Amino acid sequence: MSNRMQEDVLPQQAAEKDDGAVHRVSIPQKGTLARGLEVAVKETFFPDDPLRPFKNQPGSRRFLLGLRYLFPVFDWGRHYSFSTFKHDLVAGLTIGSLSIPQDIGYSKLAGLPAIFGLYTSFVPPLVYSIFGVSRDIAIGPVAVVSILLGTLAHNYFPMPASATAKCDTTSTAFVNADCSAYREAYLSLIFTATFFTGVFQAALGLLRLGFIIDFLSHAAIVGFMGGAAITIGLQQLKGLLGLPTASFTRNTDIVSVMRSVFEHVNQWNWPTIAIGLFFLAFLLLAKFIGKKWPKYFWVPAVAPLLSVILSTAFVTVTGVDKHGVSIVGKLDGHINPSSVGRLIFQGEMLKHAVLLGFEASLIALTEAIAIGRTFASMKNYHIDGNKEMMAFGIMNMVGSCSSCYVATGSFSRSAVNYSAGCRTPVSNMVMSVMVLIVLAVATSLFHNTPNCILASIIINAVINLVDIKAAVLIWRVDKLDFIACLGAFMGVMFASVEIGLLIAVGLSIAKILLHVTRPHTALLGNIPGTSIYRNVQQYPDAIRTSGILIVRVDAAIYFSNSNYIRERILRWIDEEEDRIRKENGVSVQFAVIEMSPVTNIDTTGILSFEDLLKTLKKREIQLALANPGTGVIQKLNDSGFVDVLGQQWIFLTVGEAVQFCSRLLELMPDKLA
Amino acid sequence: MSNRMQEDVLPQQAAEKDDGAVHRVSIPQKGTLARGLEVAVKETFFPDDPLRPFKNQPGSRRFLLGLRYLFPVFDWGRHYSFSTFKHDLVAGLTIGSLSIPQDIGYSKLAGLPAIFGLYTSFVPPLVYSIFGVSRDIAIGPVAVVSILLGTLAHNYFPMPASATAKCDTTSTAFVNADCSAYREAYLSLIFTATFFTGVFQAALGLLRLGFIIDFLSHAAIVGFMGGAAITIGLQQLKGLLGLPTASFTRNTDIVSVMRSVFEHVNQWNWPTIAIGLFFLAFLLLAKFIGKKWPKYFWVPAVAPLLSVILSTAFVTVTGVDKHGVSIVGKLDGHINPSSVGRLIFQGEMLKHAVLLGFEASLIALTEAIAIGRTFASMKNYHIDGNKEMMAFGIMNMVGSCSSCYVATGSFSRSAVNYSAGCRTPVSNMVMSVMVLIVLAVATSLFHNTPNCILASIIINAVINLVDIKAAVLIWRVDKLDFIACLGAFMGVMFASVEIGLLIAVGLSIAKILLHVTRPHTALLGNIPGTSIYRNVQQYPDAIRTSGILIVRVDAAIYFSNSNYIRERILRWIDEEEDRIRKENGVSVQFAVIEMSPVTNIDTTGILSFEDLLKTLKKREIQLALANPGTGVIQKLNDSGFVDVLGQQWIFLTVGEAVQFCSRLLELMPDKLA
Repeated sequence: MSNRMQEDVLPQQAAEKDDGAVHRVSIPQKGTLARGLEVAVKETFFPDDPLRPFKNQPGSRRFLLGLRYLFPVFDWGRHYSFSTFKHDLVAGLTIGSLSIPQDIGYSKLAGLPAIFGLYTSFVPPLVYSIFGVSRDIAIGPVAVVSILLGTLAHNYFPMPASATAKCDTTSTAFVNADCSAYREAYLSLIFTATFFTGVFQAALGLLRLGFIIDFLSHAAIVGFMGGAAITIGLQQLKGLLGLPTASFTRNTDIVSVMRSVFEHVNQWNWPTIAIGLFFLAFLLLAKFIGKKWPKYFWVPAVAPLLSVILSTAFVTVTGVDKHGVSIVGKLDGHINPSSVGRLIFQGEMLKHAVLLGFEASLIALTEAIAIGRTFASMKNYHIDGNKEMMAFGIMNMVGSCSSCYVATGSFSRSAVNYSAGCRTPVSNMVMSVMVLIVLAVATSLFHNTPNCILASIIINAVINLVDIKAAVLIWRVDKLDFIACLGAFMGVMFASVEIGLLIAVGLSIAKILLHVTRPHTALLGNIPGTSIYRNVQQYPDAIRTSGILIVRVDAAIYFSNSNYIRERILRWIDEEEDRIRKENGVSVQFAVIEMSPVTNIDTTGILSFEDLLKTLKKREIQLALANPGTGVIQKLNDSGFVDVLGQQWIFLTVGEAVQFCSRLLELMPDKLA
Repeated sequence: MSNRMQEDVLPQQAAEKDDGAVHRVSIPQKGTLARGLEVAVKETFFPDDPLRPFKNQPGSRRFLLGLRYLFPVFDWGRHYSFSTFKHDLVAGLTIGSLSIPQDIGYSKLAGLPAIFGLYTSFVPPLVYSIFGVSRDIAIGPVAVVSILLGTLAHNYFPMPASATAKCDTTSTAFVNADCSAYREAYLSLIFTATFFTGVFQAALGLLRLGFIIDFLSHAAIVGFMGGAAITIGLQQLKGLLGLPTASFTRNTDIVSVMRSVFEHVNQWNWPTIAIGLFFLAFLLLAKFIGKKWPKYFWVPAVAPLLSVILSTAFVTVTGVDKHGVSIVGKLDGHINPSSVGRLIFQGEMLKHAVLLGFEASLIALTEAIAIGRTFASMKNYHIDGNKEMMAFGIMNMVGSCSSCYVATGSFSRSAVNYSAGCRTPVSNMVMSVMVLIVLAVATSLFHNTPNCILASIIINAVINLVDIKAAVLIWRVDKLDFIACLGAFMGVMFASVEIGLLIAVGLSIAKILLHVTRPHTALLGNIPGTSIYRNVQQYPDAIRTSGILIVRVDAAIYFSNSNYIRERILRWIDEEEDRIRKENGVSVQFAVIEMSPVTNIDTTGILSFEDLLKTLKKREIQLALANPGTGVIQKLNDSGFVDVLGQQWIFLTVGEAVQFCSRLLELMPDKLA
C-alpha cells in the first residue's frame, strides 16, 4: 500500500460508507491575544476570584464590602456579641498562659534575650486581629522560625573573637565592650530581617504571588518540620543539662550537638537535670490527659504556666540557683519600646537582613497558611491566601518597629485556641492584653524561673512536629514523595536548617521536572461490548485491535518531554511488532494517539510530532489523532501540522478512529495475512 | 436529603435498578516496590531501550553487537565500499575547503591564535568518526561555542594591567613578559576547560542524563542562536573595519560594540573595508546561488576558500598590508603538539575551567544533538543521544591533550556535508587529512591572508543562525514560547552570552512550572446522541446535564497545583450555581470529576481532595470520580480516600457516572423544583 493511496483514496471510500457516524474535531475560532492574556492572568494570579462578592452590587455597598475586605475586623465585628466574647475570653486566657513560657524559650532559640519573645506576643497579635481573616490562628513567635533566624543570623554575622567566649546574645549581662557592641548589632540585624520578612510577605500577597509557597510539597514540609523539631529538641539539651553556652556548639546538626553534649559530661548540672526531667514528665502527662479525654483540653494548655510557677517557687524557696541551676534573671519591666532607630538599611547588614528576611518569610508563611487552611476547612470558611499574606506582612513590619522579631501562626497555640473554643481573633487580643499585663507589672516574677523548665516546655511543644503517622502514610502512597520527605529531614538533621530547606525546595521542584520530563504513556485496548478504550495494564480484559496500535499520552507535550514522547511512541510500536511477529498477527498499519490528556503543546512538541509523522510514513504506518483539546488543535493547525497530516486523520474519539481504520483494513485484504 | 441517605440508601436503589450496565473501576494489584523502581529507572534513563538489539541473541553475536555498539565504525565499516568512498571524498573535500578559513576565524573568537582552530579541525573529527553515530555531522570549532569560551574566559581571568593594552591573546607577537605569561595561562585555561567540557559530556552520556539538554526549549534556542549570531557578526566589525584590538571593547553587548565602532571612526581602515565588503558580497552571492539552484550546492561551500586564496593573492601582489590591512601573519607549520602539560588541576584556574567547561558542554551538546537528530530524521536512522554525548566527550578529552579547543557539530558544515552527499563519518576523516596537509606543509600560504576576509566569512556563516521564519512561527503558535525566545535573544544582545543562556534556561523552566501550577480545567457537556462528554467551550453544541456538574482536570495533581485545582473546582460550582439561579434551574447536586487526564497524584493532592470532599459534603453536593488511572486509584485507595468517598462513587466513564446520578435525581423529585 503506497502512502498516497492510504492518504487519499481509502479514506474517501471509508468516509462514503459511513458519512454521518464520524464526528469531526472542530478547530475552534482563535481568541484574541488580549482575551488569552486576560484569562492567563486571571488563572495565574486570581484563581480564587477575590472580587466575586463585589459583582452586581451598588456603589455604597461596594464601599462597605471593600472596607470589610481590607479590614476583616469590620466583617466579624458587626455580629460580635457578649456570648461570643465569653468563648474568646476563655480561649485567649488559655493561649496566653501557654504563650508566656513559650515566648521566653523561643526568644532564646532566636539568640535574643527573653523579653523580646514577650514583646513579640503583644504587638503582632493585635495587628493581626485587625487585618487577618483566620478565626482560629494564634499569633506569636514559633520554634522553627526562631531557630532559623538564630542560626542563620549567627552564620551571616559571626561574633568577633574579641567579644570573648562568654559573650551570649541571649543574655544582657555585661561581658566587655565588644560583646555589647556585637549584641546591639545583632539586635539590629534581627529587627531589620523582621522588617524585610514583613516586606516580602506583604509583597507576595500584594502581587498575588502566594502560589509560590505551594512549591513546598506537603512531604517536604513534613520532613523539614520533623528534622527541625528534633534539632530544636537537641538544642534544648544545653538548657536541660545546665551546660554553659560557651562550651556548647553553635551548629545545629545532630553530630555537633551530640559531641558537645558528651564532651562536657563533667559540666552536667544534676539539680538542673532533675528539675527539667521532672517537669518534662509532668508536661507529657498533661498532654496525654488532654489527648485521652478531650474535655480536659485545658490541662496541657495551662500545664506550661503551671510548671513555670511551680519551678520558680521551688528555686526561690530552695535557692538551688546558688548550686549552678541557671535562671532567667532580670527582665526589664517595659512594654515594647520603639525599635525604628535600630533598623539598618545599608552595607553588608542590609544584604544579610534581606536574605534572612526572605528565608524567614517563606517558612513563616508556609506554617501560617497551612494552619489557616486546616482550621478554615474544619469550620468551613474560606481563606484568601494572598490577603492573609498581606496581613502577616503588615504585622511583621509593625512588629519590627516595636522590638518584635518574626511572628507567625503557631501550630501548638492555634490547636489549643481551637479546642478552647475561640470564635474570632478577639482571643488573640485577650492573649495580647495578658502579655501586656505581665510586661507592665509582672516580669520580676520570672526572675527565678530556671532555664531548664523552658527547655522542657520547648521539647514538649516540638515533639508534636515529628509527624511519624504522616511520614508512614507518605511512604505507603508515594515513594518519591517519601524521598523528598526523608531528604529534607536528613538535611536539617545532619547539615543545617538552611540546607534542609534547600533540599526540600530542590527535591520538590526536581520531582515536578522529572514527572514532566518522563510522562506516562499507555497502550489502550477496547473494553468488550463498549466503545470505551482503556489502559490494557489497568484493565486486563481490554482487547487490542489487530493492525491498529492505540497509545495514550498522559501529559502536555513540551520541549522537555517531546523527544521522550516521540521515542516512547516508536518503542510502543516496536514492542507491539515484536509481539505480533511471535503471534503471526497483522503488523501495525495505524497508530492512533489518544490526545485527551494532552492539554497543551508547544513549538518543540509540534516539531517532534512532525518528526514522528515522517518516521511513521517511512515505515508505512498511518498516524491518527483522537480528541485533541482546544489549545492543542489550534496550535497544530496554526503550525500547519494539521494540513500535513490531513484533517481526516483527526477524530473525536478513539472509538471513531478505530472504526474508520478497521474499515480501511477491511479494504486491504492483502495486509491481513 | 441528608448525606447519610445520599450515601447509603439511594445508590443501592439505583444499583439494583441497573446492575450490569455500570462498569466498576478496578483497583489494580499493587506492583512491588522493586518492580516500580525498575520501571521508573528504565523510563527515566533508558527510554530509548538501547539494549533492544541484544535481546534473544547468542553470546558471540552479543559480543559483536557490543563491539559495534561501542565503536560504530565497525558497524558502518563492514559495508564500506569504493562507491561509498567516492561520495565521502567529495563531501570531505568540500567541507575541508570550508573549514580552513572558518577555523582560522573562529579561533580568534575564542581568543586564540589562528593555528589552534586548524588543530581543532584535525584531531576531533578523527576521534568522532570512530565513536560517533551520526553519518552527516561535520565536526570542528563552531562560532557560538568559540565566542562563549572567548568572552567567559576573559571575564573569569582578566588580563593584568601590566600586560599593556597592546597584549592580545589571538596574536603571538612579543609585547612584554607579562603579556607572554598571560597568554600561556590563557591557553592553559582554555585547554583545561576543553578537558572538562569532554568530562561533562562523557559523564552526562554515561549516566544517561542526556535528557537535561531537553530542558532548553526550541524557542529559547532559536532566540539564543539568533542573539549569538548578531553578537558574533557585530564583533566582526572590528576585523571588517580594520580597528586595532586595543581600541575595541571586550564586551559583547550591542551597545558597547557599537560605541567602540563609532568612537574610533578615525581609525577605520578604508582598504580593509573595501576588501572585506567585496568578498562579503561575493560570499552572499555564492550562498544565494547555492540556495536557488540546489545542484550548485558546492558554490557556497568552496566560496570561502576561494575568497581566502583570491584575497591573499591580492595582498601579496599589491602589498596593501603596508597600508594598515592587518594580516594573519606567521603560522607555525606543525601538526598538533601535545598539550597534556598545559592542563591545570588546581587553584582558581581549576574552578574557572570547570565552570567554563560546564557551560561550553551544554551549548556544544545542544547544537550537536540538534544537528544529529535533524539529519538522522531526514535519512531515517536513529541516534542514541546519550551514546553520542559520550562520543563528543571522548573527542574533546582527547582534543584537550592535543592542543585543540572545544569541537562540536557545526550547523553550516554539516549542512554542506549533507548536500555534498556524504555517506559515513569518512567525510570527516577526509577533512581531517586535508587540514593535516595544510598544517604540515602549507601554513605559510596563509601568511598574507587579510583578517578582514575571515570577518566576512564568519558574518556570512552566522547569518543563517538568525532564523526569523522560526521566530515568526513561534509567535503564531505560542506567545509564551515567543517570550522565552525574545528573552534569550535580548539577553545575548544587550547583556552577554552567559546572561542570554541563563535567561533561556530560566524562562524554559519557569514555563514548565507555570503550566504545572495552573493546569487547565474544563466544564464538560454531553454531545447530543452519544455518550461522549466534551469541553463545552470547544464544542458549543455539548449539553450540560441539569443538577450534575462535570469538570475535567487536565493535569496530574501535585503539591504545586493541588490548592489551585481544589479552588478552581469550587469556583466552577459557584459559577454554575450563579447561572442556575438566573435560569431557575436545578441546583448542583452532583459534581463529577473526569479524571482521565489526571495521570498521577501525590500526597498533597490527596489531602486537597479530602478537603474538597469535606467542603462539598457541607454544601450537600455529592462528589463522583470518573475513570481514575492505575496509579491514581491505587494511591487514593492506599491513603484511604476511596473508603471515605465510597467505592460506588467511582465510575469507569463520565457517561456512566451521569447515568447513575440522573437516576438518583429522579428518585428525589423535591429537588427538581
